[in-house]
Amino acid sequence: MPQKLADRAATLAPLLSQGWSDVEGRDAIGKTFRFADFNSAFGWMTQIAMIAEKMDHHPEWANVYNRIEVTLTTHDAGGVTALDVTLATEMDRLAP
Amino acid sequence: MPQKLADRAATLAPLLSQGWSDVEGRDAIGKTFRFADFNSAFGWMTQIAMIAEKMDHHPEWANVYNRIEVTLTTHDAGGVTALDVTLATEMDRLAP
Repeated sequence: MPQKLADRAATLAPLLSQGWSDVEGRDAIGKTFRFADFNSAFGWMTQIAMIAEKMDHHPEWANVYNRIEVTLTTHDAGGVTALDVTLATEMDRLAP
Repeated sequence: MPQKLADRAATLAPLLSQGWSDVEGRDAIGKTFRFADFNSAFGWMTQIAMIAEKMDHHPEWANVYNRIEVTLTTHDAGGVTALDVTLATEMDRLAP
């Protein structure tokens, strides 16, 4: 069972400096990704979907054309865990 | 340029009987699709993404695990057009 981050502030600092932010009213982090067009946006979603499925840890995400709003949290743990940090880091790595 | 539906009620009636509904406060239609799991949900999204790209008409959609909330409207027309009816029909056709 995943556990909430022991040292949340220090662990999340690198992500918060890369455009991630705390989600209002929830123990979750979020970021809006922008791409050149729908093809690029959905291509990235597909890359992330395969990583998420392999991790068995899935994002909440919404897409409108070239924009994707992501929310990450671990439902089983009731907050942000190392799984979210890993997925967020992969999202940043694969974004243009 | 796409035009808003001339006979909105009659044209949308078949979709409204299939779980589509008017979106509050917008000239748009929406539906929530549920799948067995993330793999099935994202597989369907990928099928629809390719159809949408070919049509050059894209949905607003949000995914959480096995659930996908879709909103369809045509921004250029400021409301629901035949493009949305076509895309909604394809979504229903490809859903399990």
